[in-house]
Amino acid sequence: MSAKLFEEVCRYARQTAAWASIDAVLGWDERTHLPPAAAEHRAEQSALLAGLVHQRWTDPTFGRQIEELAGDSDGDAALIARRLRRQRDRRIKMPKTLVERLARIAIVGQQAWQDARQNNDFPTFQPVLKEIVELKRQQAEAIGYDDCPYDALLDEYEPEERTSRVAGVLGQLRDALTPLVGAIQQSGRHPNIALLYRDFPIARQERFGRTVASAIGFNFACGRLDETAHPFCTTLGPHDCRITTAYDEHHFGSALFSILHEAGHGLYEQGLPVEWFGLPLGEAISLGLHESQSRLWENFVGRGRPFWTFYYPHAQQQFSALRDISFDDFYFAVNDVRPSLIRIEADEATYNLHILIRFELERALLDGQLQADELPVAWNEKYKNYLGIASPSDRDGVLQDVHWGAGLIGYFPTYALGNLYAAQFFAQAQCDIDDLDSRLAAGDFRPLLDWLRDRIHRHGQRWSAAELVRRVTGRELSIEPLMEHLRTKLSPLYLS
Amino acid sequence: MSAKLFEEVCRYARQTAAWASIDAVLGWDERTHLPPAAAEHRAEQSALLAGLVHQRWTDPTFGRQIEELAGDSDGDAALIARRLRRQRDRRIKMPKTLVERLARIAIVGQQAWQDARQNNDFPTFQPVLKEIVELKRQQAEAIGYDDCPYDALLDEYEPEERTSRVAGVLGQLRDALTPLVGAIQQSGRHPNIALLYRDFPIARQERFGRTVASAIGFNFACGRLDETAHPFCTTLGPHDCRITTAYDEHHFGSALFSILHEAGHGLYEQGLPVEWFGLPLGEAISLGLHESQSRLWENFVGRGRPFWTFYYPHAQQQFSALRDISFDDFYFAVNDVRPSLIRIEADEATYNLHILIRFELERALLDGQLQADELPVAWNEKYKNYLGIASPSDRDGVLQDVHWGAGLIGYFPTYALGNLYAAQFFAQAQCDIDDLDSRLAAGDFRPLLDWLRDRIHRHGQRWSAAELVRRVTGRELSIEPLMEHLRTKLSPLYLS
Repeated sequence: MSAKLFEEVCRYARQTAAWASIDAVLGWDERTHLPPAAAEHRAEQSALLAGLVHQRWTDPTFGRQIEELAGDSDGDAALIARRLRRQRDRRIKMPKTLVERLARIAIVGQQAWQDARQNNDFPTFQPVLKEIVELKRQQAEAIGYDDCPYDALLDEYEPEERTSRVAGVLGQLRDALTPLVGAIQQSGRHPNIALLYRDFPIARQERFGRTVASAIGFNFACGRLDETAHPFCTTLGPHDCRITTAYDEHHFGSALFSILHEAGHGLYEQGLPVEWFGLPLGEAISLGLHESQSRLWENFVGRGRPFWTFYYPHAQQQFSALRDISFDDFYFAVNDVRPSLIRIEADEATYNLHILIRFELERALLDGQLQADELPVAWNEKYKNYLGIASPSDRDGVLQDVHWGAGLIGYFPTYALGNLYAAQFFAQAQCDIDDLDSRLAAGDFRPLLDWLRDRIHRHGQRWSAAELVRRVTGRELSIEPLMEHLRTKLSPLYLS
Repeated sequence: MSAKLFEEVCRYARQTAAWASIDAVLGWDERTHLPPAAAEHRAEQSALLAGLVHQRWTDPTFGRQIEELAGDSDGDAALIARRLRRQRDRRIKMPKTLVERLARIAIVGQQAWQDARQNNDFPTFQPVLKEIVELKRQQAEAIGYDDCPYDALLDEYEPEERTSRVAGVLGQLRDALTPLVGAIQQSGRHPNIALLYRDFPIARQERFGRTVASAIGFNFACGRLDETAHPFCTTLGPHDCRITTAYDEHHFGSALFSILHEAGHGLYEQGLPVEWFGLPLGEAISLGLHESQSRLWENFVGRGRPFWTFYYPHAQQQFSALRDISFDDFYFAVNDVRPSLIRIEADEATYNLHILIRFELERALLDGQLQADELPVAWNEKYKNYLGIASPSDRDGVLQDVHWGAGLIGYFPTYALGNLYAAQFFAQAQCDIDDLDSRLAAGDFRPLLDWLRDRIHRHGQRWSAAELVRRVTGRELSIEPLMEHLRTKLSPLYLS
């Protein structure tokens, strides 16, 4: 009886997920291929799907069924039902018109952002952003919150997390990072990063990127790598995970590290249990947890000495521009630490300060303390305060990220949480796996991937991110593993 | 009152078209990007959409509304309602399960075909084909027919057309073509086609193809050109028409002529009135009519002397491999006439014999006179009879076309009709446009495009294909314009 009900709930939820996965196809296409004039119709298509998916989630029969299952027992069925109920509760509070308006503005906003960025023209983006902020405010009010409206939005990306707790951790991180970054700046030591700005033919970059993504375990039979303006990873179905990157012919690394980053996301997606696709046990826990997987491969593996011990000879073979550069100079260059304008190109140490800026600005926008038209000025002030620099153009300033244009507010702090989770997981993997560094230096990524699959990926949403961190590492989330990683890596380069 | 009803019907039909256009996105992606392991989930996604679209079409309220409008008057509203009723009648006869099974098998079948073709392994494709034929038979029975089951399928692609009439015209065409092709064969004259099998870098082919597609009027702000195994054109929305091609580094022409062909389809799609998107006045009349537009640009323009008078110097500039080839040798080579194995590479004269073969085989499959496992042998027999050759491999024989794997039976004859329509339209355009050849030789394609837009594109489905041919050319469809075109073009090359 209960087994039959569970089966029915699963079938229904899976079909809802299949509908949602169609929207993922539209979204991927929108960001990689859509002709400029087609944005409006795409928004209409996406709104139709969003409306249908919303309708399915809020269906009263489905609601009653998961309610019944959730109270049932402590098995997987009850766990799944409770997770579904949590997701449904958020949705049921949202009026259908608001869901559809948000879906539509996300498409229109991304196109407006893309145009505005291309033309370095914030004013054309500003009215769309204003509308987005207003709709997100309505969303927060509709969903409700204990402490502040931002909580309601953050919870979408980082379930069970709280604004005050994030603000606390990021505050600690800032206090710990500032002296480290300051000392590095004052050391007067800098790698010669000009070494990385030579000619790196795109076709070879693509081939090298594919080789590395395959080597760390990304399965191309169930995935793709394409080109786009702003790299991302998306899942279009149980065997269809797609990553993208942007190539710069005159820079080594921007494409490669973004491929490692997105492949890290992809490994998590490809490691989720396919048999649970469309149900909470087959889905990622949170964006912060997701980001921990991308950061782990990008920074903890990909900018590490063992990784390049294996790959630098290959890179030198592929790219003649690297042949006269010593290993040490190269390794120092890919670990350059200095305040910079572009978040996605920022180093491991200063990156979290970029997040702090966005976290504070979007809270101010949402609270109404800041208006959309005041944003470029406020942006540059924050950059001066936190990083000591300001962008000469909005293109490389307030227009650099797609997120706000896509309606994503409350999303940015998950990047910083991801860095913290990644550090804590990687420290634990170093303890759990014999000779991890030697394995990585031999190009053997399997033990690390197996460890991640076993400890993290295969569990889907069985636990919250905070609980998973406790289970995997035996302690609460802390800034110490990240600080320890940075000190250990950066001291010999800058401070010894 | 009636105006309000009309508005309601339009709104509903447009939204149904928007849902269907989402499936077009899935279809485009399936044929250009889908990872191999993802085919099954894509089939599920597509089946969901097909089911929903079917449900909307068969909705009884919608049925009553168009019935009411259709009897109303003779204005556009009644015309639209009658066209919608015709489409709806076909659908309402189809059980939802059959619609969903057909949608699913079309995806699975295409993937199976692709694998089978790659591995030259017909037996792996055969069981899927058998199932497809069985489902198409069920479809024909469900829809009903006066004369033969094939009529019910043909009508989907060429509304109001009949198998017996098509068989008659194609028979006349065969009787007229055979002596012409025979005389050409016996002349012993052949162009040196080895000239076209040299090195043509793909990046340059792509650039040249884009230039030509733009020049004839294809609007890239509302469209794309991508790469695929089997070139096609599809519309994903009112400003989103996508064409594809396949490049061969060692052949000049296969990509370019397919780009001209698909861009011809694209020009028709882009010329349909956007304000009627999703309604019969904004949609193509038939596949045969569609094919007339692609063939007109590919063959009547693109293989013509005026076209190359303008483009050959450009081509020589782009491709060093062409620089030692005289205009006359090149022009002769792109108008090579000889029996060959691959339909899409066949010349203007023998092409229709390829269609006859498929037309006869698929009728035999549908009637049960031929079984799927007998197809490779039957295929080669027909090729020997009609063209005097047979394929050494199924890859270049029975597995060469995607159509049957995609569930398209009754589709092939529209290609031959397209050639006939194209010839009749182009002959009329030559009469109506002053100095058309001189304009083409000056690279000025606008007068021809304007003529097509005015006479054909902007009318959508106002008239049937047969009626449009009468209106535009003042007479019934005839094989004479095509034969006249072939004789005029080929006699100086082969028979003078």
